[in-house]
Amino acid sequence: MEKEGESAPGPATGRAERPPTIYDVARAAGVSASTVSRAFARPGRVNAGTVERVRLVAAELGYRVNPLASALPRGRTSMLALVVSDVTNPVYGEIIRGAESAAAEADHVLILIDAQESVRLERGSLERILLGVDGVVLAGTRMSDSAIRTAARRRPVIVLNRDVADVPGIVLDDRHAMRLVAEHLAELGHRDVLYISGPEASWVNGMRWSGLREAAAALGQKVQRVGPFVPTVEGGRRAASALDAGRPTAILAYNDQQAIGLMRVLQSRGIRVPHDVSVVGFDDIYPARIVTPGLTTVAAPLRAQGEAAVTALLSSRSTPVPSRPMTLPVKLIVRGSTGRRRPLRIPPVALP
Amino acid sequence: MEKEGESAPGPATGRAERPPTIYDVARAAGVSASTVSRAFARPGRVNAGTVERVRLVAAELGYRVNPLASALPRGRTSMLALVVSDVTNPVYGEIIRGAESAAAEADHVLILIDAQESVRLERGSLERILLGVDGVVLAGTRMSDSAIRTAARRRPVIVLNRDVADVPGIVLDDRHAMRLVAEHLAELGHRDVLYISGPEASWVNGMRWSGLREAAAALGQKVQRVGPFVPTVEGGRRAASALDAGRPTAILAYNDQQAIGLMRVLQSRGIRVPHDVSVVGFDDIYPARIVTPGLTTVAAPLRAQGEAAVTALLSSRSTPVPSRPMTLPVKLIVRGSTGRRRPLRIPPVALP
Repeated sequence: MEKEGESAPGPATGRAERPPTIYDVARAAGVSASTVSRAFARPGRVNAGTVERVRLVAAELGYRVNPLASALPRGRTSMLALVVSDVTNPVYGEIIRGAESAAAEADHVLILIDAQESVRLERGSLERILLGVDGVVLAGTRMSDSAIRTAARRRPVIVLNRDVADVPGIVLDDRHAMRLVAEHLAELGHRDVLYISGPEASWVNGMRWSGLREAAAALGQKVQRVGPFVPTVEGGRRAASALDAGRPTAILAYNDQQAIGLMRVLQSRGIRVPHDVSVVGFDDIYPARIVTPGLTTVAAPLRAQGEAAVTALLSSRSTPVPSRPMTLPVKLIVRGSTGRRRPLRIPPVALP
Repeated sequence: MEKEGESAPGPATGRAERPPTIYDVARAAGVSASTVSRAFARPGRVNAGTVERVRLVAAELGYRVNPLASALPRGRTSMLALVVSDVTNPVYGEIIRGAESAAAEADHVLILIDAQESVRLERGSLERILLGVDGVVLAGTRMSDSAIRTAARRRPVIVLNRDVADVPGIVLDDRHAMRLVAEHLAELGHRDVLYISGPEASWVNGMRWSGLREAAAALGQKVQRVGPFVPTVEGGRRAASALDAGRPTAILAYNDQQAIGLMRVLQSRGIRVPHDVSVVGFDDIYPARIVTPGLTTVAAPLRAQGEAAVTALLSSRSTPVPSRPMTLPVKLIVRGSTGRRRPLRIPPVALP
């Protein structure tokens, strides 16, 4: 499914081609969808001629029985997959809960796939489950646009935090978020902001960096970037070494996990947050509230994002793909990790 | 699958009956396993007489093609499910990573199911995915023993942190853990320990409470229990209200999440940890390291538990069910949340 260029563009409507559904077969064969279902799952209960007609029509249309659904007692489709880039990142907890709640309401089981921040694993797992599910939400995918489109031609796909042409998406207002961060830091007197970069394959990472540059330029701030670093606590710890060069008074990390790892290393070296340096995260995961000082961060409506993703997935067969992703609002949560820029800088700290 | 009493006991070996595999069919039909596979997946590529013989034998044995596998390009089984009681609890992060690593090594995709601390959801989801996977790891299941055994007769099942007759399990040494906790608190002078109870349907919760009572009795400590409370940060916050009554000098929570919620509420009320009360958790999740003070807790080899679960699952067709679950060792991690019991009305002492 991954070969680049193998995919023909969708129809002029911008709608990716979908595999035929049970309803297409029912319409073409002049029977009800439940008859089509029985013709495959329990042929003994349907008139033999009808079974034959249904199967012929299905073969002509290229219809495939959902193989997992055919094993289920009720003989109907009922499974969605949510692929997350790292299930151990608490940011996905709320997204998962939102998606689960919308899936349960529609009587679908939601299965989770953990890509473990590996595009190879993500592609492999998706390839192997795709035909067994009725739709997929990709959260924080590191796959190429082309690979996502190819998957979306075989099953309905919704992509979170990414803008992929011809695939419905739900993003956060990263540009507005960066404006909020830059303005908050400017009000505290910070003129230099260091951005800790997340994964290069993260669409959101690029959006945040360009959004920060744009907002900072408007405010007369200087911005620098280091990285990429993995979007984990460990990635933040590694990023701490990048501090020696720039000596910024304020740091924005790609996400809260990085910010927490960064703060821990700074504090262990005697660098005080926010007295010596202000730190800002992104996501507002639970640990952002329990670290000392509390982490100033951008909060997103994560649960709503998960819910919206599943709702969009379930309705995607009957609605056209919007030309732009749905954008959800964000807000800045100010806690103790940001403070006024101090006129005097502390002397450099010797690193181990 | 849930009807109690519907299940006949397994053979005298204690081995639950397994559905026939592709190898059983191949042996009985006198062909190779790959021929059996092709007879179902691509019958046009196999001699028609062979297809008929294979299908007859399969029907006699009650063999079912794995429906999801039959949709996969390679036409073979390759999927395991890990059901966790709450995917947002960081304790599962390490278990998931261990399970994923063992599954990947064996070229299986691991799908995750989040039971959201609901036995109804857990049973519903398991029922709907069971026949689509090759085996299931139940982590922190709240289902009845009978329901677990019923599932285990249809697909290989490994149960974590639970001892279910005739189903292979992997548990932690909870009894030893409670002895370590009680001894640590006794050394600090604590004579009264309050246990914050987790979910009633949690097997581990019962083990921890009885283990604590036993260890405390041997040390001349008094123990009390409050609860049950949900095993989340919010559950710990609610448990804080139970403190007013007992006034213990030391508290053991069912898990770290509860302990963290409890500490937050205590601190917000001006009750100092560990000066006024010592707090101990269980699991050693990452947030236990980043709260202030750091949480004293019981650390388990979570990743090893996840790995061992998948390894046991993959080998379960060829090995008998052990009569007792595999027990993994634990250790106590002492951090800042436990300290010496203070006599009342003595001025505060500076803590290190």
